[in-house]
Amino acid sequence: MEPWQLTAATAAAKLREGRLTAEALTRSCLERIAEREAVVKAWTFLDPRLAIANAREVDKVHTMGALHGLPVGVKDMIETADMPTTYNSPIYQGLRQGRDAACVGIARGEGAVILGKTDTVEFAAAGRRALTRNPRDAARTPGGSSSGSAAAVADGMVPLAFGTQTGGSTIRPASFCGIYAMKPTHGAVSTEGAKRYAHTLDTIGWYGRAPEDLRLVAEAFRLFDLDQPLGKGLRELRIGLCGGPNWHLAAPESRAALELAGRRLEEAGAAVEPLALPQAFEGITEAQRVVLLGEGRGAFLQEYVAAPGLLHADFRDRVENFAGISGAQLAGAYNLAADCRKLFDALFPHFDAVLTPAAVGEAPLGRQDTGNPVFNSMWTLLHVPCIAVPCTTGPHGMPVGVQIVGPRFGDAALLDVAALVGPVIDPR
Amino acid sequence: MEPWQLTAATAAAKLREGRLTAEALTRSCLERIAEREAVVKAWTFLDPRLAIANAREVDKVHTMGALHGLPVGVKDMIETADMPTTYNSPIYQGLRQGRDAACVGIARGEGAVILGKTDTVEFAAAGRRALTRNPRDAARTPGGSSSGSAAAVADGMVPLAFGTQTGGSTIRPASFCGIYAMKPTHGAVSTEGAKRYAHTLDTIGWYGRAPEDLRLVAEAFRLFDLDQPLGKGLRELRIGLCGGPNWHLAAPESRAALELAGRRLEEAGAAVEPLALPQAFEGITEAQRVVLLGEGRGAFLQEYVAAPGLLHADFRDRVENFAGISGAQLAGAYNLAADCRKLFDALFPHFDAVLTPAAVGEAPLGRQDTGNPVFNSMWTLLHVPCIAVPCTTGPHGMPVGVQIVGPRFGDAALLDVAALVGPVIDPR
Repeated sequence: MEPWQLTAATAAAKLREGRLTAEALTRSCLERIAEREAVVKAWTFLDPRLAIANAREVDKVHTMGALHGLPVGVKDMIETADMPTTYNSPIYQGLRQGRDAACVGIARGEGAVILGKTDTVEFAAAGRRALTRNPRDAARTPGGSSSGSAAAVADGMVPLAFGTQTGGSTIRPASFCGIYAMKPTHGAVSTEGAKRYAHTLDTIGWYGRAPEDLRLVAEAFRLFDLDQPLGKGLRELRIGLCGGPNWHLAAPESRAALELAGRRLEEAGAAVEPLALPQAFEGITEAQRVVLLGEGRGAFLQEYVAAPGLLHADFRDRVENFAGISGAQLAGAYNLAADCRKLFDALFPHFDAVLTPAAVGEAPLGRQDTGNPVFNSMWTLLHVPCIAVPCTTGPHGMPVGVQIVGPRFGDAALLDVAALVGPVIDPR
Repeated sequence: MEPWQLTAATAAAKLREGRLTAEALTRSCLERIAEREAVVKAWTFLDPRLAIANAREVDKVHTMGALHGLPVGVKDMIETADMPTTYNSPIYQGLRQGRDAACVGIARGEGAVILGKTDTVEFAAAGRRALTRNPRDAARTPGGSSSGSAAAVADGMVPLAFGTQTGGSTIRPASFCGIYAMKPTHGAVSTEGAKRYAHTLDTIGWYGRAPEDLRLVAEAFRLFDLDQPLGKGLRELRIGLCGGPNWHLAAPESRAALELAGRRLEEAGAAVEPLALPQAFEGITEAQRVVLLGEGRGAFLQEYVAAPGLLHADFRDRVENFAGISGAQLAGAYNLAADCRKLFDALFPHFDAVLTPAAVGEAPLGRQDTGNPVFNSMWTLLHVPCIAVPCTTGPHGMPVGVQIVGPRFGDAALLDVAALVGPVIDPR
């Protein structure tokens, strides 16, 4: 087995034991990229010499951080001191920031090798799409907006990568590419140095190929309660099976995936109960839209003022408030979100996690349609932690995942649940 | 009258009419700074040649933005593409970012002349204090953390300046220095490129010497409803007089200021009614503390990981969660804040504004104690717009202001109220 084939957790153990060096793992990843990039097109910036130099520096360090020696891809929405950042916007071609985004700086401090920048939808929102293709079928999208990060991890180019999620930009691509992903509790990881889109929603997320991979990154970020094990086995878990208010929009393959995941868990001994969310949740998807558009007014004003001609019409519409969102509507959306957050948190500890679709269905054909975020956007607004878990394949043989969701700041427990349910839901 | 003595609004009118150039105004401000900076110490970076070059560029522009030709000071918590940013941290001495913070970029786009960087408390939070002195008494603090911006505007060095507020860092210095300031609705102005402290609280604010000055900046940021005039006179205003849950902490001069402001408004014909906030507000100050400390864990993790020895113990304590804030406590604080936001917004339109103390009292002696933010922190957590209005002086002849507060996204109406009540509360 080549080093690039190792999951982050397995590689981390070898690195820790001195059976693998950061340089060897980085070189292996670079070889995989050299072999596959012409098809996958995951990277917007990759300098093999810089990556190897970074790896050698890590190999010299004796205190081993949570991400010691692990190559990490960084979505090009997130700033890096030693690599350009473009947000896939013509306005910022070649931009060099003077310091790393918080998540990048923390990852480096914990021993990560920042490998390169991965392609993204323009400002992680709209306009220009990533060039990236789905590694499982190059005619299909890997999903968006964290297109390059999801594809790179799915294709073995890098064991870990950062994405962002404002609607469904981390979890949905994981489902489309057949990998794991975590969107932590909103605010638990600093978004500083990631371009703003909608501050109430913007969340740093990350990809891995096993639940344990996700935990390594959570450890780097020192999320709450990682030192408090769940202390339960699979047979003690209680899972809420939740189609949610948008169930009618799920394609047959996503309905089948949710039912299959629930059945597998039940067969493995977990208690799986249907969960109907309270009435208030009927308005939550619309509230996320109001927040997204309402906050877009200010988020893209700088670009609108400085370079309106280079800003895609979709962003100009947001700044000009084409949707006609009022302050009262925005405050109302915040109020509803706050109500629903309280209601959702109150489902715990009766449940250990909620199981719900991760995407509408399989990855769409082409590059323009990166998929509908409707099964993600409400959870993003609720601020709750979500973990994408691969499950099955759809009618075209493409991956279809599910996601598990916990209460705010229940990230550590959700990671423990993922480690238990992952191998059951995803028995490859 | 020298150009530096003009308020932003008066200077803006002259600039618009061609009776003043950006260069002449900038040169006048630079002269004032040359005369006073040795005492006031407001600036961390000032390059007169760069400022004049920026002014000349603005003078060449024919489309006149909201801030056309107006010099603006920028708190050194906020990034600038052409000037270093340090956050008053030893970690970031000489940092050059590749792009402007959103508020700086927007101000430039609207014709502002970015004059220089103003001194701040370390990371706008704790640790190192600004060197700045109160222009009214050099033995006293101008308040913090936006020390340099408040002092510079108060001393005529610049007509406008940006601050930030996470607890009371914009409004309190305005009270201490005898000027106007605005903290807009949270999220209405992008904080991108301002160092993060606590994302639920961080707000860009600004200083001026008249209510109309504040409106110019609000226009640059295209806040909601600026095209909808309040349509009321002073005699039609209804003002809620609100000591708030921390009234017992107000010094006699702040109690006197609030009562004086209320009396002046009543004498001018406004309806002034005592306002007792609902019971839920008893916990709001503590909730702000929980949010501040809880969110500080992630906000300073990057610096903690990269350069722990250069990070003040106060920030290390936050990252290590010395206060022992739990995820459940943090979620509880968010829930209480959401409840109180709804309750507060519901006071409108019965009231046009709430009148409340801006600070505990006069500016303290010395540089270490920048004053207690207890009369600001709850409003910051409530996300509501606040405008500081000068009112009177205290026992040592130092300024004592008050503040008016509106509902979320009621920024435009609050600016109209400020224009009406300012000359009454502050009849200099």
